[in-house]
Amino acid sequence: MLNYITTGESHGRYMAVILEGMPSGLGVDMDYINGELRRRQGGFGRGGRQKIEADYVEIMGGVIRKKTTGAPIGLLLKNKDHTVDVLPSIERPRPGHADLAGSLKYHQDIRAVLERSSARETAMRVAVGAVCKLFLKEFGIDIAGHVTRIGPVAIPKEALSVNEIRRLTKGSLVNCVCRKTEQAMIRLIEKAQKQKDTLGGKYEIRAEGLPIGLGSYVHYERKIDAQLAQILMSQQSAKAVEIGAGDQLASLWGSEAHDEVFYSKTRGYYHKTNRAGGIEGGMTNGEAVVVKVTMKPIATLARPLSSVNMKTRKAEKADFERSDFCAVPAGSVIGESLVAYVLARSFLEKFGGDSMREIRRNYDGYLRQVRA
Amino acid sequence: MLNYITTGESHGRYMAVILEGMPSGLGVDMDYINGELRRRQGGFGRGGRQKIEADYVEIMGGVIRKKTTGAPIGLLLKNKDHTVDVLPSIERPRPGHADLAGSLKYHQDIRAVLERSSARETAMRVAVGAVCKLFLKEFGIDIAGHVTRIGPVAIPKEALSVNEIRRLTKGSLVNCVCRKTEQAMIRLIEKAQKQKDTLGGKYEIRAEGLPIGLGSYVHYERKIDAQLAQILMSQQSAKAVEIGAGDQLASLWGSEAHDEVFYSKTRGYYHKTNRAGGIEGGMTNGEAVVVKVTMKPIATLARPLSSVNMKTRKAEKADFERSDFCAVPAGSVIGESLVAYVLARSFLEKFGGDSMREIRRNYDGYLRQVRA
Amino acid sequence: MLNYITTGESHGRYMAVILEGMPSGLGVDMDYINGELRRRQGGFGRGGRQKIEADYVEIMGGVIRKKTTGAPIGLLLKNKDHTVDVLPSIERPRPGHADLAGSLKYHQDIRAVLERSSARETAMRVAVGAVCKLFLKEFGIDIAGHVTRIGPVAIPKEALSVNEIRRLTKGSLVNCVCRKTEQAMIRLIEKAQKQKDTLGGKYEIRAEGLPIGLGSYVHYERKIDAQLAQILMSQQSAKAVEIGAGDQLASLWGSEAHDEVFYSKTRGYYHKTNRAGGIEGGMTNGEAVVVKVTMKPIATLARPLSSVNMKTRKAEKADFERSDFCAVPAGSVIGESLVAYVLARSFLEKFGGDSMREIRRNYDGYLRQVRA
Amino acid sequence: MLNYITTGESHGRYMAVILEGMPSGLGVDMDYINGELRRRQGGFGRGGRQKIEADYVEIMGGVIRKKTTGAPIGLLLKNKDHTVDVLPSIERPRPGHADLAGSLKYHQDIRAVLERSSARETAMRVAVGAVCKLFLKEFGIDIAGHVTRIGPVAIPKEALSVNEIRRLTKGSLVNCVCRKTEQAMIRLIEKAQKQKDTLGGKYEIRAEGLPIGLGSYVHYERKIDAQLAQILMSQQSAKAVEIGAGDQLASLWGSEAHDEVFYSKTRGYYHKTNRAGGIEGGMTNGEAVVVKVTMKPIATLARPLSSVNMKTRKAEKADFERSDFCAVPAGSVIGESLVAYVLARSFLEKFGGDSMREIRRNYDGYLRQVRA
Repeated sequence: MLNYITTGESHGRYMAVILEGMPSGLGVDMDYINGELRRRQGGFGRGGRQKIEADYVEIMGGVIRKKTTGAPIGLLLKNKDHTVDVLPSIERPRPGHADLAGSLKYHQDIRAVLERSSARETAMRVAVGAVCKLFLKEFGIDIAGHVTRIGPVAIPKEALSVNEIRRLTKGSLVNCVCRKTEQAMIRLIEKAQKQKDTLGGKYEIRAEGLPIGLGSYVHYERKIDAQLAQILMSQQSAKAVEIGAGDQLASLWGSEAHDEVFYSKTRGYYHKTNRAGGIEGGMTNGEAVVVKVTMKPIATLARPLSSVNMKTRKAEKADFERSDFCAVPAGSVIGESLVAYVLARSFLEKFGGDSMREIRRNYDGYLRQVRA
Repeated sequence: MLNYITTGESHGRYMAVILEGMPSGLGVDMDYINGELRRRQGGFGRGGRQKIEADYVEIMGGVIRKKTTGAPIGLLLKNKDHTVDVLPSIERPRPGHADLAGSLKYHQDIRAVLERSSARETAMRVAVGAVCKLFLKEFGIDIAGHVTRIGPVAIPKEALSVNEIRRLTKGSLVNCVCRKTEQAMIRLIEKAQKQKDTLGGKYEIRAEGLPIGLGSYVHYERKIDAQLAQILMSQQSAKAVEIGAGDQLASLWGSEAHDEVFYSKTRGYYHKTNRAGGIEGGMTNGEAVVVKVTMKPIATLARPLSSVNMKTRKAEKADFERSDFCAVPAGSVIGESLVAYVLARSFLEKFGGDSMREIRRNYDGYLRQVRA
Repeated sequence: MLNYITTGESHGRYMAVILEGMPSGLGVDMDYINGELRRRQGGFGRGGRQKIEADYVEIMGGVIRKKTTGAPIGLLLKNKDHTVDVLPSIERPRPGHADLAGSLKYHQDIRAVLERSSARETAMRVAVGAVCKLFLKEFGIDIAGHVTRIGPVAIPKEALSVNEIRRLTKGSLVNCVCRKTEQAMIRLIEKAQKQKDTLGGKYEIRAEGLPIGLGSYVHYERKIDAQLAQILMSQQSAKAVEIGAGDQLASLWGSEAHDEVFYSKTRGYYHKTNRAGGIEGGMTNGEAVVVKVTMKPIATLARPLSSVNMKTRKAEKADFERSDFCAVPAGSVIGESLVAYVLARSFLEKFGGDSMREIRRNYDGYLRQVRA
Repeated sequence: MLNYITTGESHGRYMAVILEGMPSGLGVDMDYINGELRRRQGGFGRGGRQKIEADYVEIMGGVIRKKTTGAPIGLLLKNKDHTVDVLPSIERPRPGHADLAGSLKYHQDIRAVLERSSARETAMRVAVGAVCKLFLKEFGIDIAGHVTRIGPVAIPKEALSVNEIRRLTKGSLVNCVCRKTEQAMIRLIEKAQKQKDTLGGKYEIRAEGLPIGLGSYVHYERKIDAQLAQILMSQQSAKAVEIGAGDQLASLWGSEAHDEVFYSKTRGYYHKTNRAGGIEGGMTNGEAVVVKVTMKPIATLARPLSSVNMKTRKAEKADFERSDFCAVPAGSVIGESLVAYVLARSFLEKFGGDSMREIRRNYDGYLRQVRA
């Protein structure tokens, strides 16, 4: 089963990831992968770090002559700022962070906690996601994310296609599909900077081109909505995950909440609505998969909150580390990657196969079967 | 690692579960476990099935003289209605269910899909949760859930303790802490019954008494919020999972969104607020764990939605199976069980040990450490 | 991934297993499965228990109208002798058993250890193996095992096909392919009974009809020889596992030890020898998979060995439980089941798919590919 | 649970490994780790490659100021010879290697198979093992391996302690405890070099200082002998794994085959013999863990075996790649690492805990318990 482990600290010499389970024969476009890393670094409201260095990764293994070989894929990022061994210790945990619990659990300085719990680790998860996107693209599966809310400022509700999302967010400083909303978001972030405060928000991810039947209802670990919820909630700052209409479904009548089934020769089975977000019974139902994630405001404040000095047990203000003011635009790029990983994993589980050629054949056979 | 598999169909002869990874020496109170099964069966708005039979389970293994032995624990439920092999086939998938995708994916009749995807399987998950609750109770960890919304009817917002939840929901037909809201909920369900429609809603689960440091930030699979999101989203009908203030955190300033840290000799580190729902950096932070789940309305309608006959490909109304009108009260009992399972798993992972005696010793040592 | 958990004690009311990951559409022949359970109970040298009751299992789930549905398959065995809760405690650990370590580790009476560590649990593993054999049979994969040694008495060396093994062991009381050796084995077992001693031995399992390329070299957990070694060493009493010529390969020159590669239009790639036991680089190479397992003599002796009373710490003879004198014939049946499970798991991983129809199509496509 | 993935090819730019699950607070002695890598490179009978470069690894993550932090530990090795992208394709699979099956399975050139299936990957597994040895050392657990046979030349049988093994193998060119046997082994390897042939053999690994009760009988995946068999059989060239007296136990009477139990106040429970190799019922029994591994002769011969050109399907001699003549001495170093990994994993599973301090406390408590 597709599987990965990341390593590396925020200010360590390296960050790296090993991804196990990719088939052979997939073309690996390093420019694409590094482009995705750059997308993660963008977004109005980022702090100083992103300007220091443009992230890029090298291959450690699993790729020969630009094609995957079926072996574990290793990707390596070299940090320019690698001062982790000489950075000062931290004594005042930042509310909202891993600092307090991490320090007590692992019986170590907050520095060691901060360095690993930092969202910098998501650079590696974006690299994994980029490989998964390259894989999914081969089967016509496409993913895009966009920011739907920053603080109280939200976009008007409308369902957009992946292409529309990509077109409308192009050039947006906050990965937003609506220029007017974008302006309001930027003003809000500027206000946050001035007030030394931070902001959270929401983003939406949409994946199109999925076959019917990824995931399963037979065992809870196989449910694709559960897998998506897990991966998305594992993102730093995530506090809510919704599938399709999500939270709003609580208030509707059953007769309004489900997506009726239709059939046509050209399209096969289809739906005219997509309240389910493309998932029923823990499986893709052929419609676009739509998920929404809520991110809390960044927990590192330039105007720190009340905390306790863990050496003296005296009340003091929390420590401050260089940080962003709003990470939701970056979060939406990371979210795409997380969704890509789960979809690629489910796809590989369903279709088996060790080479792109074999998977393609298995996939085509299944499509013929479900359309017959 | 704690792990389970359930088996059985809605109308099969048996349902069963095997739970692997429980330590030895835990007292197994079958009355408690069967009481939990009865709680799941209750709730205003259930259909006919719950009246047929009171679920109860027997031990298949892992328990000798009412104590666990460390071996896999098997629990067996005998269905009185076991007609699965003679039930008619189903041709018109119900929108909102696993029917369409499940039938195409597994290349079989919808009957075989329905029998397994049905929420009846949750009886086994409640049985697992009951064992986990017995385990957690030994360490002073207590869990309670309650319904916070049915359709548009919601309780007034207030943070309640586990004891208050248990006291206030006592006798409630919809597991609601507010009698006035309960009345409105019941009227709404009666309306649904009359209109042959269904309802969804939301519930909240609260767990108290947890040590600081369950889960971890070091690897995404270890994050306890991600594990909770996975298990809760795997529940039939779940469409959104929130941790703590969840969705509302998107709109707040950072300065309002986090829980400041305090210290006192008697309490150790603590917080005066709990917007984080007891989880920071993928770890418990010593406060109550609070999660919220949105359930969509039941997808089986007595006044069926539009569908397609999978034999003829003609448009027809969906098939109808005996069903509930509102499953949120039962959902809140199931949610308790799911949370109990994840917390017990994390607890066992953190403290290791094979017998209750050993775990107790490890646990006490850790508590002394973090308080020192 | 195919996965199972068993539950139940030697003298418990039930034994059961849940097998997760089987596809839909496989015919489940209960007579075949129960026939396999009977095979396990046979063999000259078994103790009294096997005469008490003929094991048979019922379906708990995952099968409707004699076909698998893709849901977890539950199998239930009802013990006639279910006295576990009233059996006396045991104080003197039997050397060679789990008794001493199990009692200390789990801080409980040896009775609770013995009941679970007993080889009676293998009845459930044979049931799992029988389902896997039914699956493999659909793809022309066939498995047979036979006893090659009991104590010092061994069969003459020769490579036999699955059909020959099956034909030659037919009616053998010790699952031996050579009548003359069988006689010597039986005499030896009779001697063991008289002397109140026990015997071990070796068995060989052979699987034919496997495609090239199950398992993989890319990651250690994917190696099929490693998976076979794990499952076979997990059998009660197993102390050595060999693949192909195994232990003997240590003494050969490289030029004598490997299987040269040939090609013909009708057979594709093939080998004229099979020292590798059908596995190279952690993958099946198209030849028969051959494994050998060494079982130590049964550890429960009617003339008990020296031990210590765990209550008094005084030296005493070990406790005695009703037991067999030689379990190698039964062991060879269990070994077939264990091999079947690993092969089915690898097969499903390689070919993906959720229904027999889909897997068949994927499999045929791959066979065409490797032969092209 | 302790878990790792390696990446990298034999002639790639990098090799790397990420190890997940180590606690915080373990001192990481890079000189020790790199010393272990050097030990793997030694041994009479190695080919040219080992002379090119002395392997050493750098930290990618998980270690700050020479202490582990609980985060995944990344180790990076930079190959001096990194020509993988320009090496010629290979058309004639080497019998005994992954070449044929790997090329067909992954639908790619043998080059891509060879680069990953090569035993060079074991450098990373030795690095993992070195970290695990550092961990085990903190609890007084010590591991040593030695070569017991090369081709027909074997050491005289005797049970040696870890200290004796270490002392007697010191300076040995083939990691052999007996100088006389060593001379015969070296002469044999020289003969192999002259004849352009290769050799296999056997090695033994011994681990001392283990507590009673690592592993378990309750579920097959928890059995420590099964886990050892898996990891050892996953080593390149391994064809047999034995626990304790292993294969020889098949021929003994039960009364001769088991280790009687004794007790003394100073030692607690103990045994005077160790035929079981320190494992009964899938658990450590307090005696030294002893395992034996058979390695087949190296499959790459300078005087190649018969093969088939996969482009033309014509019979031709196999391709030749630079290789060793005998890898058993290196194999014994790798075997130590593999055993160390499994023991550390079981240790961590049994004792839980996130920091060395916590694990120490849990461990000490258990020791007091089992001795009480």
